[in-house]
Amino acid sequence: MTLTFMLAQTHPLTTNLSAIKKTLPSQNTQSLIKNLQEICHSDLVQLNHIILTHLEQRVPLIGDIAKHLILAGGKRLRPLLSLACCRTLGETPSHKMVELAASIEFIHSATLLHDDVVDVSPLRRGRPTANALWGNKPTILVGDFLFAKAFELMLGDNEKRVLPILAKVSQTITEGEVFQLSYLKTFSLDETVLLRIIGSKTAALFAASCEISAALFNRSCDVQEALHHFGYNLGMAFQIIDDLLDYVGETESLGKSMGDDLKEGKVTVPLFLAYQEGSLKERGILESMIARAGVTIDETLDPSDLDTALHIMHRTGAIQKSYDKAWTYAKKAIDALSPVNESPIKRILSDLCYSLVIRTS
Amino acid sequence: MTLTFMLAQTHPLTTNLSAIKKTLPSQNTQSLIKNLQEICHSDLVQLNHIILTHLEQRVPLIGDIAKHLILAGGKRLRPLLSLACCRTLGETPSHKMVELAASIEFIHSATLLHDDVVDVSPLRRGRPTANALWGNKPTILVGDFLFAKAFELMLGDNEKRVLPILAKVSQTITEGEVFQLSYLKTFSLDETVLLRIIGSKTAALFAASCEISAALFNRSCDVQEALHHFGYNLGMAFQIIDDLLDYVGETESLGKSMGDDLKEGKVTVPLFLAYQEGSLKERGILESMIARAGVTIDETLDPSDLDTALHIMHRTGAIQKSYDKAWTYAKKAIDALSPVNESPIKRILSDLCYSLVIRTS
Repeated sequence: MTLTFMLAQTHPLTTNLSAIKKTLPSQNTQSLIKNLQEICHSDLVQLNHIILTHLEQRVPLIGDIAKHLILAGGKRLRPLLSLACCRTLGETPSHKMVELAASIEFIHSATLLHDDVVDVSPLRRGRPTANALWGNKPTILVGDFLFAKAFELMLGDNEKRVLPILAKVSQTITEGEVFQLSYLKTFSLDETVLLRIIGSKTAALFAASCEISAALFNRSCDVQEALHHFGYNLGMAFQIIDDLLDYVGETESLGKSMGDDLKEGKVTVPLFLAYQEGSLKERGILESMIARAGVTIDETLDPSDLDTALHIMHRTGAIQKSYDKAWTYAKKAIDALSPVNESPIKRILSDLCYSLVIRTS
Repeated sequence: MTLTFMLAQTHPLTTNLSAIKKTLPSQNTQSLIKNLQEICHSDLVQLNHIILTHLEQRVPLIGDIAKHLILAGGKRLRPLLSLACCRTLGETPSHKMVELAASIEFIHSATLLHDDVVDVSPLRRGRPTANALWGNKPTILVGDFLFAKAFELMLGDNEKRVLPILAKVSQTITEGEVFQLSYLKTFSLDETVLLRIIGSKTAALFAASCEISAALFNRSCDVQEALHHFGYNLGMAFQIIDDLLDYVGETESLGKSMGDDLKEGKVTVPLFLAYQEGSLKERGILESMIARAGVTIDETLDPSDLDTALHIMHRTGAIQKSYDKAWTYAKKAIDALSPVNESPIKRILSDLCYSLVIRTS
């Protein structure tokens, strides 16, 4: 699917379409990430080595479960952002910096393992989840292990400014997730709350990934803050699109089933906006759907429910509005980078912001 | 129940009975802990304040779940050991020291929340568990939150020797728990493996609790090692007795149901020793029991199974041998304290080792 075709499909009503097209990066997300991976090649070799070394466990089940997830071919977007931000500052990532990037990946992986248990998810990255293969017990515990491993990796010298960032972000993630649980199966929340949930459960780790290099290399607080805002806004855009793709994405390339959020009664941005803008009748339909949603999902919602929800989203302009929101965050992310010197890698990071918004998987 | 009566009941075959009686502390565990609490009174007030402050959460569900467990009247044995060890060194616990003790309690509480999910436990400390009240999802996530909170609490100045201890111990605990899962429902393990599991899942945190004061106050490595060994051996004794009380304890004062380990197919020290010393027929009976055990326990094992297991344990001397093992660890714990100057609080800590072995709940 070409970008233009995809845009025409997903932005049928956009008032910003021309603006979006004008600023469109010449490459898609996949190719931009490949660029970053090439620039950070030697760092990534080191990252892989560190990850593998720390997963060689004396309790084999830990290694098996952790490797099943971490070596499953995820994008490693967060550690890549850490390394790229470090290079954007003109610094070659030190061994400690790569260890910090690995610890970011471990924190992220721990939350994924627990999420899949919590959500009873059968698929992740196109493969059966750890909980589907090994059951909940070891999956919960290996998640805990990865959290702890992440903290071990953070330790060392000269990281006084880094540790508080990473300790705080792990709390923030779980806060966001519990907060989301509190608002499961209800539309009684306002947009601020919804965005705070996304900010906590996703954007905070992006922010931490990006700012730690500035902290480790003792750059000014302005630069650290700039990278924090870059990561935070990028994370916001990323998650809103992720939630949107759960409704309008391509199942095959997503590697997971679509409509999962609806099935679980999760009110994400597109569903929330559809409800906000919906007629009384449409609100009733959406309320009834999420009331029926739950973990025993396959028995309570059927494909026509997803179609109905999608129809309401299109009619109310919720799809478009969600894209607009993500787009606004992407622009903020790019603006945040202004205190950082221009460089080819900075340009790629900027392009990445836009490309993540218009990705299809 | 008097100590002597209890000893006569539980040590009917002991060869060490006279030795045990000779070294018996004049007070029981409860009263020794009360002594420690009095000595550390001002530290505990500060500890409670720190714990409460950190549980005042902007996401109320987190505070509710965490408080349900942490304020349920647990003994706070681990932070108490931290504070007592600090005072044994002649140091008044600083604010940082109390924060570290709080972080120990948070780590412990996180593992309890996850354990109860993993074990599908309905009761803890005589009250419904968090998972029974709020379900697995928020319980898993609040466990994660407490882990992260623990790491935040650890941070600050001058704790370079402390952080690695606490980062490592969280890993070790989960390693021990996953390791135990790998050996669920099987007697195909040797005693070394079994003791390593106990060492990881319980004794390691006791060791860390005790040694951090030496690390924080920059005492010699010998003193730190002494406190580590004290805590480790105390933890080993504590867990072996805990496992024994699951068979021979007093249900009411335990605040949980007895026979849980058998129901879950967990091979603990007393069951393992019974199997080791059992006749071919007895081995067959025990194997069949743990093969039937599982999370759907109430349907697969009945009270007569527990009686049968107990009978085999008594006949094979497994109960006695478990006590002897715990006793040996308690003695090692006391010996480990030798590099530490004599003081009233050191005497209480020594007495605590023996009293924990002969406790009935």
